[in-house]
Amino acid sequence: MTQRATPVIGFAGYSGSGKTTLAVQVVAIIRSTGYKVAVVKHDAHGHYREASGSDSGRYVDAGADAVVIVSKGRTIHIARTDGDGESSLDDVIAGLSGYDLIVVEGFKAEPHPKIVVYRNERQAEAIESTGGSIVAYAAKEGCVGLADTFGAASAPVLNIDDAQAVAQFILHLLSGQNV
Amino acid sequence: MTQRATPVIGFAGYSGSGKTTLAVQVVAIIRSTGYKVAVVKHDAHGHYREASGSDSGRYVDAGADAVVIVSKGRTIHIARTDGDGESSLDDVIAGLSGYDLIVVEGFKAEPHPKIVVYRNERQAEAIESTGGSIVAYAAKEGCVGLADTFGAASAPVLNIDDAQAVAQFILHLLSGQNV
Repeated sequence: MTQRATPVIGFAGYSGSGKTTLAVQVVAIIRSTGYKVAVVKHDAHGHYREASGSDSGRYVDAGADAVVIVSKGRTIHIARTDGDGESSLDDVIAGLSGYDLIVVEGFKAEPHPKIVVYRNERQAEAIESTGGSIVAYAAKEGCVGLADTFGAASAPVLNIDDAQAVAQFILHLLSGQNV
Repeated sequence: MTQRATPVIGFAGYSGSGKTTLAVQVVAIIRSTGYKVAVVKHDAHGHYREASGSDSGRYVDAGADAVVIVSKGRTIHIARTDGDGESSLDDVIAGLSGYDLIVVEGFKAEPHPKIVVYRNERQAEAIESTGGSIVAYAAKEGCVGLADTFGAASAPVLNIDDAQAVAQFILHLLSGQNV
């Protein structure tokens, strides 16, 4: 018997759209309902860096292929990928078990179901470059109509400043097992 | 057919003994010979922290049970452990496959083969509280005799300032498959 895949919901949008802020709030709300939530974030611009001079960074700089830091409350696993390669979203998701929901930030060209986040017309163009399965938009008030301008599929437009409503939307999808 | 377990070598010693500096140098030397090396570091004092305000830290603070950051060249997986719990060394090692050597820093009460590092008499007391399988000592010149004072087992005493010699010692053990 095959185990049912963990539901995945994505947040996609340009830098500055506020997708991280929204996704962080949504994770907190959904987590507080008792769901176990894993997050996969695409750091497209390589912003993530080890704290300078940290022991883990020293091992990475020394060429270690993997560094695992075990401390009270958390375990951190840093894996080097060859050259400038990146782990694929599919591989990362396949490695995550025991969670009720996987929230994906970025990876907008991938086909997982996602919410497109934008605050203005320029950012709404992200809709066009987003891979299939847009299940909702999260837009600044006043930008609601842009979903129709750029969006091929019809999907509800949620308020980017109402994380509670966005979380409820996702929980509703989860209860229907459509995510 | 069972796969042979990946060899493990540990560096144990008190804070300030220089065990991280030595282990980092040894990893760089062994890595340069073509071995794939994974490192497991016990962060007993919780020194490791996400950079303040980093997106990964924001998700962790929001209660996410796991956060994976995918970027070019590396993938970082942060897993929350319940309460103040810690992952066990055995579990971490069991999850590491595809490496030629696992270097363990800390976890000195665990039974894996290890090198005890010390620079003075106070630090040499670490020998007494170290779990079995001391395969060598790495000591500051002038402290060599302390291994006899505190050590129950006879094992070679290496120079803490000669990472090349320590690396060669480990490679020699590996070639004999004794680690």
